[in-house]
Amino acid sequence: MAGSNTNNIIKASLPRGQRDVYGFELQKIKNIVSKITKVYESYGFEELSTPAFEFSDALGKFLPDSERPNAGVFSFQDDDEKWLSLRYDLTAPLARFVSENYDNITKPYKRYQFGSVWRNEKPGPGRYREFLQLDADIIGSDNYIVDAELLMLATDSMRSLGLSEQNFNIKVSNRKLLDAIIELIRIDDDIDENRRLTILRAIDKLDRVGLGGVEKLLSDGRKDESGDYTKGAQLSKRSIEKILNFISIGSTVRNDFINQTKEIISKTEQGPIAIDELIGIDKLLTELGYNQEILFDGTIVRGLEYYTGTIFETNIVLDEKKREEMPIIGSVGGGGRYDKLISRFRKDQVAASGFSIGVSRLVTVMQMANLDIFEDNYGPVLILNMDKEYQQSYYQIATEIREKGISAEVYLGSSGMKAQMKYADRRNSPFVIIEGTNERERGIVTVKNLIKGKEISNMIENRDQWINNDEIQFEINRDQVANKISEIFSKINKKT
Amino acid sequence: MAGSNTNNIIKASLPRGQRDVYGFELQKIKNIVSKITKVYESYGFEELSTPAFEFSDALGKFLPDSERPNAGVFSFQDDDEKWLSLRYDLTAPLARFVSENYDNITKPYKRYQFGSVWRNEKPGPGRYREFLQLDADIIGSDNYIVDAELLMLATDSMRSLGLSEQNFNIKVSNRKLLDAIIELIRIDDDIDENRRLTILRAIDKLDRVGLGGVEKLLSDGRKDESGDYTKGAQLSKRSIEKILNFISIGSTVRNDFINQTKEIISKTEQGPIAIDELIGIDKLLTELGYNQEILFDGTIVRGLEYYTGTIFETNIVLDEKKREEMPIIGSVGGGGRYDKLISRFRKDQVAASGFSIGVSRLVTVMQMANLDIFEDNYGPVLILNMDKEYQQSYYQIATEIREKGISAEVYLGSSGMKAQMKYADRRNSPFVIIEGTNERERGIVTVKNLIKGKEISNMIENRDQWINNDEIQFEINRDQVANKISEIFSKINKKT
Repeated sequence: MAGSNTNNIIKASLPRGQRDVYGFELQKIKNIVSKITKVYESYGFEELSTPAFEFSDALGKFLPDSERPNAGVFSFQDDDEKWLSLRYDLTAPLARFVSENYDNITKPYKRYQFGSVWRNEKPGPGRYREFLQLDADIIGSDNYIVDAELLMLATDSMRSLGLSEQNFNIKVSNRKLLDAIIELIRIDDDIDENRRLTILRAIDKLDRVGLGGVEKLLSDGRKDESGDYTKGAQLSKRSIEKILNFISIGSTVRNDFINQTKEIISKTEQGPIAIDELIGIDKLLTELGYNQEILFDGTIVRGLEYYTGTIFETNIVLDEKKREEMPIIGSVGGGGRYDKLISRFRKDQVAASGFSIGVSRLVTVMQMANLDIFEDNYGPVLILNMDKEYQQSYYQIATEIREKGISAEVYLGSSGMKAQMKYADRRNSPFVIIEGTNERERGIVTVKNLIKGKEISNMIENRDQWINNDEIQFEINRDQVANKISEIFSKINKKT
Repeated sequence: MAGSNTNNIIKASLPRGQRDVYGFELQKIKNIVSKITKVYESYGFEELSTPAFEFSDALGKFLPDSERPNAGVFSFQDDDEKWLSLRYDLTAPLARFVSENYDNITKPYKRYQFGSVWRNEKPGPGRYREFLQLDADIIGSDNYIVDAELLMLATDSMRSLGLSEQNFNIKVSNRKLLDAIIELIRIDDDIDENRRLTILRAIDKLDRVGLGGVEKLLSDGRKDESGDYTKGAQLSKRSIEKILNFISIGSTVRNDFINQTKEIISKTEQGPIAIDELIGIDKLLTELGYNQEILFDGTIVRGLEYYTGTIFETNIVLDEKKREEMPIIGSVGGGGRYDKLISRFRKDQVAASGFSIGVSRLVTVMQMANLDIFEDNYGPVLILNMDKEYQQSYYQIATEIREKGISAEVYLGSSGMKAQMKYADRRNSPFVIIEGTNERERGIVTVKNLIKGKEISNMIENRDQWINNDEIQFEINRDQVANKISEIFSKINKKT
């Protein structure tokens, strides 16, 4: 019972990997999401909201992040024994939604979604079991132009945050390039599904283990720093050489990548198809002014058993010095073409392509890279609670200030003036308004400009100067206070 | 495996009581939340976001809605066997958050939160197992001024949606009034905890069963239309008369309520305390111009074992005729003072007061009452895909239009012109832009104004007139198209 006194005091804490978000961090998340979704809407994407949990078998188990092969989902049983799971991404619910409403959806269907996803895995620094994703997908067209549009959209989203090619890049590949490489090494080696996955995982690790590390993972195996041994793909020397030859091209200006790759895979079946798509994408992007931000890179792997064509990932570029001081965070988002996912629900294949931004991760990485584009807002103007007989007047002042579009509040506690000033300071109030008996009798209020106060307190020499400074504290007719505050505040906002 | 073809086609469907939200409904939700949170922020409330699930014992089981005494929560076990539950409201997580961070929080702490909550109960029409709540709470002051501020905030929130006292009211009571009534009937009857709850439940049913129904529930019992029998509180005649006397005051202008109630409960211990608080609240509200919207009503019960002082609920007022045509929806929100909830986590009591708006319910009820204040937006301007050689130009046009702040998209499919026009229609596109070979050679584009087209097509007589109308279809220099669309569109938006 809520109201009963009890000796069993319960510990107030959160499960591991769960957290509260508030203050400046939450403001940043909301600003980022607002700016990016504005871009999505300008491209004609419509928002969709799906529920947090669905039938487990409808969501399936297609965790797109190859770095977390053992990642799990949170599941529980409904009253009728059916298994339900919290969504682990926003793509699986989209596939279900599209299939369920296929005939009513205007196709090509362009939707975006923002929301939490949940992964039942080991939390770590910056890795939570609930995090925010912001996805944009286009359903119903297998044209590579769709992939190009998504790359423009991803670029414009990052640009909307004030970032340029100095701060981010998008690395693009095509899953068919890797298919072509597999074709090439089939000449010397038997490649079954298991071996194929081992090879892809090895390539995916290039960033962390370097070319030498990948070489070991393609031959006998590799022991990492912790002593863990990963068994290798046991490929022949010639095959390993072919793969290393391909992945050593790395991240490159698009035209160079096409030229170098063409040579290696021109004789395969899948290679020329991939190259044609990349050429088409490059042409449109170049004509429309998307250049340095979007690179081609054959070592991009992403979801191992998920994507079927174009794949890409967005990275915040950190300057080299900082990179050493912080843990590697990896990409802040990515996606690609996944033409087979929706066929789980339907006999016919439904073409699909999209990408996801890890919003929580983006906020963290931008902060690490000193790319914060938002400033902490001021708190509300505080009207001190000097005399409970004057409550009405205090609320009247608050209302007048709010009507100017500025937040304002009456102090709600019963503490003295010192505690009230401390409250104003902690809430980052720009102004404090005082109406005591003295002020009331004279028809005025006293205003303390806390912004100016902080600014000047670092500069001035003695206390008299401080108290006499009219900008820091002044009296004004009660009727004029809202106008005056609005006037000063608009000047301050113009400055920042 | 995602990519593999399989004969096991999975059914795409949602669990009962779960749903997708999109289109106009989602737009309405976002508009409502944006307007109300703007009011909250102007009052100095800060946003908090807590995770979807927490330790079950931290959330407790305090479902505030007395109409659903058997309502349950969704729970599952963590790897370490600890029980976790999806939050069923936003108050329990707030209590946990405040206790966990007590020393770091600036008090009085004013927070708002918007998000989904989950209830494991039987879904019905308009009743889902996941729904949206928008809460505002003030922690750390037991002053009734806090309750008055919350009533102003609730009123201003409804006003921000364009609603007036014609469209909504807020009914206010004080839990101590009910305590006073219990004191009064203790003269003739023994009242243990069980009997007290039976009495409160009977009063809470006044809306549905009428005074006669409550009378039965206070004496022997009552059989409802379905034949279910509810055992009564078995009170004496004199006690029943006292209760009916009190609740028959009903919803009243605040001053009248105070005068009538004062007479009945002046000799109790709790009554005068409640009356003093109500008088204080009434005084401030009246002075600040909150009148007809806020009524006093002693029959408001709300969460049976939860609230300790002021309680209130917000109702959309439906005109009487419509009320008969639709199921009774009940209030769209409410709240009150709950000074004992946080003491589950702490030895000392922490004063708290707040209220919750059921956002999904508010959208539904406003629609039923024909109070929709938002209009469905236009979709994106559509640039037809006439020739894939001209892709670059199509995307260039889209970019130019977006730079004017108008959504635009290039048609992404490979269908013919008829299908593309149908797509534009279904997406509610305001304009279609055509650049075929003919247009391209002449340096122009053709623009179809679909808004004007729909407007005029109802008015005109023959097809020639239609085709010749320059407002419906016109040619314009390629360079001028974005300017022209922006010019026409701004005139249309001014009209609506």
